[in-house]
Amino acid sequence: MSLKQAKWIWYPGEFEIYHHLLLSFRRQEFGCDYPCAWHVSRPEASARFFKAFAARQGGVFTVVTHGQGMVRLGGRLHRVNEPIAIEAGDYEIAVELFDLNAFPSFFIDSDVLITDESWSAEAYDAVRVPAAGSPAFCSPADDPAVFPFCYRDLTPVSIEPIEGGALYDFGRETFGPVRVTRPAGAAIRLIYGESREEALDAEHAILRETLTDRDPSDRPARAFRYLAVLGERANDVTVEAREEYLPIEDKASFSADEPLLNNVWALCARTFHLNTREFFLDGVKRDRWVWSGDAYQSFMIARYLYNDPSVTERTIIALLGKPPYKRHINTINDYSAYLIIGLWEHIEATGRLNFLRTVWPNVKALYAFILNRLDERGYAVRREGDWIFVDWGELDKTDPVCFEQIVLWQAHRAMAALAERMGEADEYTAKADALKENILSDFWDEEKGAFVDSFTSGRRFVTRQTNIFAVLYGLVGGEQKQSVIENALLNPALPPITTPYFKLYELLALCEIGAIDAAQDFIAAYWGGMLQEGATSVWEAYDPQQTGAEHFAMYGSPYGKSLCHAWGSGPILLLCRYVAGVSLTRGGFRVAPNPGHYRSFDATVPVGNGEVSVKYENGVFTVHTTAPGGVFFDGKTETALEVGKNYRFRSKFVELTLE
Amino acid sequence: MSLKQAKWIWYPGEFEIYHHLLLSFRRQEFGCDYPCAWHVSRPEASARFFKAFAARQGGVFTVVTHGQGMVRLGGRLHRVNEPIAIEAGDYEIAVELFDLNAFPSFFIDSDVLITDESWSAEAYDAVRVPAAGSPAFCSPADDPAVFPFCYRDLTPVSIEPIEGGALYDFGRETFGPVRVTRPAGAAIRLIYGESREEALDAEHAILRETLTDRDPSDRPARAFRYLAVLGERANDVTVEAREEYLPIEDKASFSADEPLLNNVWALCARTFHLNTREFFLDGVKRDRWVWSGDAYQSFMIARYLYNDPSVTERTIIALLGKPPYKRHINTINDYSAYLIIGLWEHIEATGRLNFLRTVWPNVKALYAFILNRLDERGYAVRREGDWIFVDWGELDKTDPVCFEQIVLWQAHRAMAALAERMGEADEYTAKADALKENILSDFWDEEKGAFVDSFTSGRRFVTRQTNIFAVLYGLVGGEQKQSVIENALLNPALPPITTPYFKLYELLALCEIGAIDAAQDFIAAYWGGMLQEGATSVWEAYDPQQTGAEHFAMYGSPYGKSLCHAWGSGPILLLCRYVAGVSLTRGGFRVAPNPGHYRSFDATVPVGNGEVSVKYENGVFTVHTTAPGGVFFDGKTETALEVGKNYRFRSKFVELTLE
Repeated sequence: MSLKQAKWIWYPGEFEIYHHLLLSFRRQEFGCDYPCAWHVSRPEASARFFKAFAARQGGVFTVVTHGQGMVRLGGRLHRVNEPIAIEAGDYEIAVELFDLNAFPSFFIDSDVLITDESWSAEAYDAVRVPAAGSPAFCSPADDPAVFPFCYRDLTPVSIEPIEGGALYDFGRETFGPVRVTRPAGAAIRLIYGESREEALDAEHAILRETLTDRDPSDRPARAFRYLAVLGERANDVTVEAREEYLPIEDKASFSADEPLLNNVWALCARTFHLNTREFFLDGVKRDRWVWSGDAYQSFMIARYLYNDPSVTERTIIALLGKPPYKRHINTINDYSAYLIIGLWEHIEATGRLNFLRTVWPNVKALYAFILNRLDERGYAVRREGDWIFVDWGELDKTDPVCFEQIVLWQAHRAMAALAERMGEADEYTAKADALKENILSDFWDEEKGAFVDSFTSGRRFVTRQTNIFAVLYGLVGGEQKQSVIENALLNPALPPITTPYFKLYELLALCEIGAIDAAQDFIAAYWGGMLQEGATSVWEAYDPQQTGAEHFAMYGSPYGKSLCHAWGSGPILLLCRYVAGVSLTRGGFRVAPNPGHYRSFDATVPVGNGEVSVKYENGVFTVHTTAPGGVFFDGKTETALEVGKNYRFRSKFVELTLE
Repeated sequence: MSLKQAKWIWYPGEFEIYHHLLLSFRRQEFGCDYPCAWHVSRPEASARFFKAFAARQGGVFTVVTHGQGMVRLGGRLHRVNEPIAIEAGDYEIAVELFDLNAFPSFFIDSDVLITDESWSAEAYDAVRVPAAGSPAFCSPADDPAVFPFCYRDLTPVSIEPIEGGALYDFGRETFGPVRVTRPAGAAIRLIYGESREEALDAEHAILRETLTDRDPSDRPARAFRYLAVLGERANDVTVEAREEYLPIEDKASFSADEPLLNNVWALCARTFHLNTREFFLDGVKRDRWVWSGDAYQSFMIARYLYNDPSVTERTIIALLGKPPYKRHINTINDYSAYLIIGLWEHIEATGRLNFLRTVWPNVKALYAFILNRLDERGYAVRREGDWIFVDWGELDKTDPVCFEQIVLWQAHRAMAALAERMGEADEYTAKADALKENILSDFWDEEKGAFVDSFTSGRRFVTRQTNIFAVLYGLVGGEQKQSVIENALLNPALPPITTPYFKLYELLALCEIGAIDAAQDFIAAYWGGMLQEGATSVWEAYDPQQTGAEHFAMYGSPYGKSLCHAWGSGPILLLCRYVAGVSLTRGGFRVAPNPGHYRSFDATVPVGNGEVSVKYENGVFTVHTTAPGGVFFDGKTETALEVGKNYRFRSKFVELTLE
């Protein structure tokens, strides 16, 4: 008798909701527990699970759970965690569980019955859905309430005596638990530092704690490169650090003849891995939260670096949380829109309709929440509790704000596409079209040849941010797009983008309009600059004008800046998407490379279940794919790419240069 | 400096939601943990609390909490559970808390700042509301996650050797924890019995457990009168039992010349107290859940017996839970309606608008859920997951069911009245009126002179249940009401009401139409009958035809019947409301007594902040009130009752008899 692999199962989404709950309340600053700044959903206390099965012979099974509950079988109640004997026959079993600490989950592995996704689950709402499970939990001793991280020992590159103790340097940014073995009665202070300066500044370091005998030796996983151990008996303390990580493999690679570029790629990949955890984090020291704007960028990066949907999908579930929606995602209007748009892009790239089916009710509830707050012209405006964010840079945020309407327009279109995938009627495209018409009539400034942030303030303020998204999302085409490019994107008179968060959107837009060189220059200056400052992961922000510890200050605190921020990993996306030129399409991919000013590069990009290799040297692209559905586009014509064949294409860009 | 009493505070409703969560998952049967059969809401993980205050002088305070979080004050973060020193000045403080086990709550008691309801609370939804607190939690060591029950030692009236151990008899039904002190290595079985038979039947008793060394000596609070202790070393076991109870005083009393009636009152009061806990329970052995239908009756009874809004309001909060509503309250359509109607009756009787304000958003969400499931004619019909309950008796439940429309009509009217109290527009009365018109045109059967259960089945089935509610809620008046009374309520050809749950509604309706004697007869036969069977609390059901242990069987199980069920306390309501004749009105009360066939009675009934005493003897009522706003009604004229004055009224009923 051959049964499939037994795995722990639960109500779909609850695993993610629970671990997001834990994560959201793990932030610490200055020795305080720092609660998440928005509402965080909890798993339901109870769920029940059903399966009809036939036992060809008698047998015994046990419903293993860390929660409580009972089993209904054969007209009787049975206990969990105790053997249940059955005879051969047809059965309908119901497992009714509750867990007031974590979320209901259980495991059966026997000759007569196992747990897997063939069970149905119900959250006492009269709707049965397929149960969810994970191969990470496949033995009775497993516990889905414990996230399955991997660990590796870390060796300090130096241990330096300092006043009052010792300073450990682990050589590069890391994240993990530290075991502090110490003599009884010794009060020890631990100061974590992403920088040496931070670890040596016990007064201002973000992560720090004083340990007494009551505190366990094993300290919670935190971000650090340096660790200062202080106290009268600090010399009697043993510190053992481990890195906590997910074993996700890189599927993309990129190298070029550009100085430092290979190191930039490695820096970005390292940074991205450190922030790839239960979910995509903003940063590992701070906030250690899941922000939809940051996550949206991470989805794009992950699609190239990992081509693994798991973290993206966990992040979408966590960000969605559960209705009723009373505020926007992360309290930010734009972030609700990004979440829907990000889901759309994820589904377009992966075709994972089962996942879409799981989140669709909540997506529709979020969308209904958005609609419910629009004004009479269908514009997103600031309602009680709203944060119209866009970017930290200066924008005219007088309602209605153009940027919000552009992302709303894209969210309408995303809903239309997702509804089509779900086989539902399109109630969305008409809304998108009407909104577009209003945007074009209200926000387009003919004289400025671009969109203004607000048409009600009278300021006629033109910002890059707004116009970048008009191009990125394709709100305008033809002459109007050209006008936006000239009068906004490439207009040196406009205030520059100063945040790395929005810089990625700007670089995407520049690449989108073919200005690859500008992106390449920026990568060299910005990421190359950080490397030269000794960064071992990408910082939350970088200003080449600053020196020394100035780099570490932010938000009014000397070490307030995160030195490992996911949004800094954007070059991975830029290089794969625009230099190697690989984009995913429904059912396949497209290769339209542009070397910019690189004289050679060698890229591997995951596509479908395989990968495409794009090499460039001496004006010639060499392309090879292991996945079907690809086409090469040289700017004029498309060539279908057969699996396993080597293709050579002369670069139109080089030809143009050589002519 | 005189400050008010400091008390623990929390986000309003979370205390009730949390304790309802715990309660809902404490049911056990046959050694299994028996999860609640419907969705149970959880408290939110986090909340924040705000207060602006002026410190006239410097001082120190501590934010005491069993959860985690931080304090924002003076532009800095501060730790909880550590002293915070401030100088004289004006402050705005924010306390941001999370609690993944219970619910966020905290306590400050200092010269400069205390916690009380003057703080505002926010559940991260951008809406600040007054914080909630309770004088039951007013010291730093208190914990709102522990419900403040009282305990008293219980002494067994006998300890009898039985085969394999000993049988403890505590003399009457009780509920509480048992401490089982036993030698190491002794496996002991505890069999709880509401009856002697149950405690002696280890195979079929509902509550039972086997204790090993790992189990603590203190066993969770459970219902029992008898306790069998079994095992090889049972004789070395010490059993100490305590009763767990709430110290709520009876404010009503009733005695009469009727044999057994005083014992019936005591039996009912005892039963009601045992079921008055965190919330009004159905029964203490089983289900130990909060059912809206049962609670609705308990609200009415409690209004007379306790005149204390606390348990009623906790119960309403618990039953409402939190949106989104995906099924009806307890999964039952009628029970959603009862909850809204019960709230209306509570507000009418108490005028407690602050409480109404707290629950109003959820009430509106529940009402919207109800509306959302109506059919095109505004009828409540069975949707996925619905349970059209009404009663266990035989009804024609072909959609739409008349009974459901009558309670829906009353719910519309309740919403109208509540909205008026909230100063909101009336979107409800028109719905009530339209529904009434439909009911009268579709369900009224002219030939039968009564309402039929269904007009679509063609069966033209007339039941007491439906017509009782048409009278109770005043759907019909005049000749139509007379017709209902004759052709349904008093029609011996119709199937009788067989459940004690619905019997109370029938008795209320009989009293309402003046048939006090019938209610008195039933009390004597039914409750008197149980007393003669040795009941120490009122049973879930009673059939005089049964003998011995037959009485204890229900739901296919020999001891499935609850022997302590709240709905059995109805005589308290009947005697106060119809014999003493006291009803609460907006701003006062009304006394319209009817002795029925009692020759004398002596009643005290709480009204407002006082009580009214109604005595009857020799055809004369003597009335005295300590609360204002009362009137006496003799069937023809009303007489205002002044506080402190003695009134004597000759009974019209006696006069009629004497004439």
